[in-house]
Amino acid sequence: MSKKVEHVKIGPKMRVSELIDRMGKSGVFSAGRLAEAVGIYQEMIENDATIFMGVGGALVPGGLRQVLVKVISDGLVDVIVTTGANVTHDLIESFGGSHLRGEPMVDDAKLRRQGISRIYDAYVPQKAFELFEDRIQPMLEDVTKVDQCMSSAKLLREIGLRLKDRKSIIGAAAMHEVPVFTPAIADSILGLQAWLYSQDHELIIDGLLDVREMVELAGKAEKPGAVILGGGVPKNFVLQSMLLTPHAFEYAIQITMDRPEPGGLSGATLEEAKSWGKVSPDARLVTVIGDATVIFPLLITGLLGRLRK
Amino acid sequence: MSKKVEHVKIGPKMRVSELIDRMGKSGVFSAGRLAEAVGIYQEMIENDATIFMGVGGALVPGGLRQVLVKVISDGLVDVIVTTGANVTHDLIESFGGSHLRGEPMVDDAKLRRQGISRIYDAYVPQKAFELFEDRIQPMLEDVTKVDQCMSSAKLLREIGLRLKDRKSIIGAAAMHEVPVFTPAIADSILGLQAWLYSQDHELIIDGLLDVREMVELAGKAEKPGAVILGGGVPKNFVLQSMLLTPHAFEYAIQITMDRPEPGGLSGATLEEAKSWGKVSPDARLVTVIGDATVIFPLLITGLLGRLRK
Amino acid sequence: MSKKVEHVKIGPKMRVSELIDRMGKSGVFSAGRLAEAVGIYQEMIENDATIFMGVGGALVPGGLRQVLVKVISDGLVDVIVTTGANVTHDLIESFGGSHLRGEPMVDDAKLRRQGISRIYDAYVPQKAFELFEDRIQPMLEDVTKVDQCMSSAKLLREIGLRLKDRKSIIGAAAMHEVPVFTPAIADSILGLQAWLYSQDHELIIDGLLDVREMVELAGKAEKPGAVILGGGVPKNFVLQSMLLTPHAFEYAIQITMDRPEPGGLSGATLEEAKSWGKVSPDARLVTVIGDATVIFPLLITGLLGRLRK
Amino acid sequence: MSKKVEHVKIGPKMRVSELIDRMGKSGVFSAGRLAEAVGIYQEMIENDATIFMGVGGALVPGGLRQVLVKVISDGLVDVIVTTGANVTHDLIESFGGSHLRGEPMVDDAKLRRQGISRIYDAYVPQKAFELFEDRIQPMLEDVTKVDQCMSSAKLLREIGLRLKDRKSIIGAAAMHEVPVFTPAIADSILGLQAWLYSQDHELIIDGLLDVREMVELAGKAEKPGAVILGGGVPKNFVLQSMLLTPHAFEYAIQITMDRPEPGGLSGATLEEAKSWGKVSPDARLVTVIGDATVIFPLLITGLLGRLRK
Repeated sequence: MSKKVEHVKIGPKMRVSELIDRMGKSGVFSAGRLAEAVGIYQEMIENDATIFMGVGGALVPGGLRQVLVKVISDGLVDVIVTTGANVTHDLIESFGGSHLRGEPMVDDAKLRRQGISRIYDAYVPQKAFELFEDRIQPMLEDVTKVDQCMSSAKLLREIGLRLKDRKSIIGAAAMHEVPVFTPAIADSILGLQAWLYSQDHELIIDGLLDVREMVELAGKAEKPGAVILGGGVPKNFVLQSMLLTPHAFEYAIQITMDRPEPGGLSGATLEEAKSWGKVSPDARLVTVIGDATVIFPLLITGLLGRLRK
Repeated sequence: MSKKVEHVKIGPKMRVSELIDRMGKSGVFSAGRLAEAVGIYQEMIENDATIFMGVGGALVPGGLRQVLVKVISDGLVDVIVTTGANVTHDLIESFGGSHLRGEPMVDDAKLRRQGISRIYDAYVPQKAFELFEDRIQPMLEDVTKVDQCMSSAKLLREIGLRLKDRKSIIGAAAMHEVPVFTPAIADSILGLQAWLYSQDHELIIDGLLDVREMVELAGKAEKPGAVILGGGVPKNFVLQSMLLTPHAFEYAIQITMDRPEPGGLSGATLEEAKSWGKVSPDARLVTVIGDATVIFPLLITGLLGRLRK
Repeated sequence: MSKKVEHVKIGPKMRVSELIDRMGKSGVFSAGRLAEAVGIYQEMIENDATIFMGVGGALVPGGLRQVLVKVISDGLVDVIVTTGANVTHDLIESFGGSHLRGEPMVDDAKLRRQGISRIYDAYVPQKAFELFEDRIQPMLEDVTKVDQCMSSAKLLREIGLRLKDRKSIIGAAAMHEVPVFTPAIADSILGLQAWLYSQDHELIIDGLLDVREMVELAGKAEKPGAVILGGGVPKNFVLQSMLLTPHAFEYAIQITMDRPEPGGLSGATLEEAKSWGKVSPDARLVTVIGDATVIFPLLITGLLGRLRK
Repeated sequence: MSKKVEHVKIGPKMRVSELIDRMGKSGVFSAGRLAEAVGIYQEMIENDATIFMGVGGALVPGGLRQVLVKVISDGLVDVIVTTGANVTHDLIESFGGSHLRGEPMVDDAKLRRQGISRIYDAYVPQKAFELFEDRIQPMLEDVTKVDQCMSSAKLLREIGLRLKDRKSIIGAAAMHEVPVFTPAIADSILGLQAWLYSQDHELIIDGLLDVREMVELAGKAEKPGAVILGGGVPKNFVLQSMLLTPHAFEYAIQITMDRPEPGGLSGATLEEAKSWGKVSPDARLVTVIGDATVIFPLLITGLLGRLRK
């Protein structure tokens, strides 16, 4: 028999984890799905799943850097796939640069003249990118002493080890031995800087090495789980990792604003991934429709609340 | 100067109000907007604004009945505009019926045979509607002893007074003298029941009387504020209330998944309402893109946290 | 066996109907669904279905007035449900007013000072509303000589008969005896004008009379079909019309930008309506995700192309 | 002065280009934007702009392969950036495989057992991927005789030259010397096959070489224009190409279902790109919200109609 929808109760001092528990008793619409996502994540942790996280979207400019660092340092993730942009913005902050709070409806030509690049309502001063160039170029020189033909994951591990910044995603990931893949690294400011470096130095970033390392990780993951924020390459590279292994994701959580009808992978349902063998036929799956800057902190705070009980 | 994006910090025991404060320090994307919405709501309460709330979407089947009741009983709203459907589902629960947790991907023809009506992943057993008919018909008979030509607001006030159910939106609203308008009452099961009743009894529900009562309320509101969940008639009827008064909304909060480009009112920006004179040129406005079942409990819990400090 | 996806071919002189036929041979994603919608509409016409059309969204400011008039005058619709706003904007043009092409990103406070109301990127000069008031008030006086307590449908029929404007939706509908319902008439400028009129004249617009007339029409419709543009009251009032009849929609086409997950009726799938008995278990259904200003002219042009063969 | 919204007129034999011209006279909402996109594209062609096209989304399974081939063979594009998935599906058809028309709401575990992979409502039989493997492996062997460390663009050019298939995107692009970039080639079945090949052969696909070739093309483009379908890497890699040149896009057309508020690049406005210097301050820009399987064939057919006048 179906359970009743128990209406969500709230109070001024309510903890996030309590609110999510109440949403779980309601059980419907996006609130119910958020609570289900917490439950799936909890089960992944308790069953010692290997957790692959896809991080699309501008989550570092969007203020989620510390949430991602906490996920890494608390052992809530084993492998990360993200965009070169998120790595660029993470490194900008490690190098002393900042992101600023701006406005979404502005004269962008005027911002250009003011030396400000806009990411919806987050601003990046041009000098942050200059700082990034000043610091990443010698770092690339140092890293290429180790190797000159690398996967993106190896490059980021080497950069992370040199950062010594526990507030950095890349830094924390290197310290906690969480590989970070950016299979589309060429498609970012970091990629442009690496290309600049490569003009008069030896440096090759070989995408096939990313596949190799990812397939190895997927092959070793006996209970793989996926947590996917946004779409694009981070989503697909996580999901496709199972294609060359005997495994399939047994858990998957997706937070997205995309929708399935236009047919793109970013909006595809997790169920669709079953037909490809990326997700197990009896996997525990949930999609939460919403903005990751709201949903992801709720998910992780709710999860922490349950794990610390 | 722009402020820095301070990255959101989280912890296992964090209160909802703390998390929203942290989101406010990040200040960008939807998290920043949620925090801004809490700030605007707080200012509305502190400045004793008259708060008009538009409640579109299936928020009662969606588990938000008690949140709405708390909003009413804590004095956080002065006027409500909603759909006949939300009133129907509120009354179903007052009459002893329930909403159940179901699945969104099902065989709807089979559900039909099982006597279950589906609202995304919430189920309503057919017997709930039968119970509704059994109880609303005599109630209409009793209510029409008072008057036989009414606004929807008067009808709902009379029903609410007879409910004596503090857990009901309509009941709580009647007790706290918060008028509840359903200008499209004909477009609901409640409307169909009223029509059935009207076949052999005197009953007229005059939409122009709703306009009259609303314009009076708007005319008396010296500092009007709007909180709009979803779109449709609840959104527009709130906004247009100012057109025949010298006032305009000085505050407005909108929670929606709709977007402006297709041109419909549901997705329209709050800024657009300035051009109509519905919203003051210097009003404090914010739109949060997201599902109300997640965002609205966060908004109200965050607000309660601040008011009780 | 599944058919192959035949790739869409195009050429400079291609007719709309040919392009849609090619999309039909592709058969997938939104292109395939648009072609399926044309096929369903064609079958409705050929099988002499009674076609109920829900018209949400600002389609008159959006430039679709003549498409809707053609639908009426070519006998492609039997019953219309729309918003008071669409009727207001239709009448504004009949009275000699215009809608203008504007910009979506503007200073709305400045527009307000310039006497312009904005609907995304369509502008309505304030004087159009003054003209509307000047013309609708005496028309209401004339109409109320016929009756003083009416459904919205009767009011609009009487107004339409007095317009003598074949370019008007309301005018064409009256001439072709297509009833036009606006169950939420109070929620529009037309409703505000009717209320102004009612302050010193007898006028009641009784929503229950709309239910009565709609239920009669639904009861007589042996093969009912639904064509739904956008959501809100127009969508639901069409769908709920079957609840008090032994019938259910045997065909349904939906054009929308809304999505189902937040649980509101506007984004609900047509399949969901089967569980309510609004749509027949074996109905032919299709939803096209897209903006009605693009999709609806394509749908009707494609349909005309097939019918004239 | 603003122009009037002239309502769209339609007729059974109307050509696509005429309908779009009528939409242009309406000028508002998405219909107006589609017509504006045709006008911008026409101006790009007439002014001999260098046209960079980003092709995200599953447009080959979605039936747009021949439209893309026509764009290439008619000289309407100079540079393409797409996903490894679109290339994979293009090659599958060149190798004799097919995409099939399916259903979006199915039992995906059952599809898995039937050997069918699903992309919304397009199906790909497992044997198509086997065929792909059989044919791509020897082709990679042949291609690596030319070079063993390549950009994705060079790899695809070499494959295209060997296809001798004028119906293939990759084949037509090679013949017409239109470079095709897939900066995230690792993130696709093609990437997995290349990795398999690389396990016992020399093959490196260096993302930095893609940057090099793209920057050269961007540097030579005196009047660059962008046509962007969907988001992800194809969108960003097109836009970022200008960052290391003195140029900026003077024209840009975007077709997308994504929205800007969640802050990701896929949904970002084209105006935002001005702040980065990717787009010129006085560029002619338009975004059409809609599904590319409908909007893109309309755009190209409308463009062809104008160019052939």
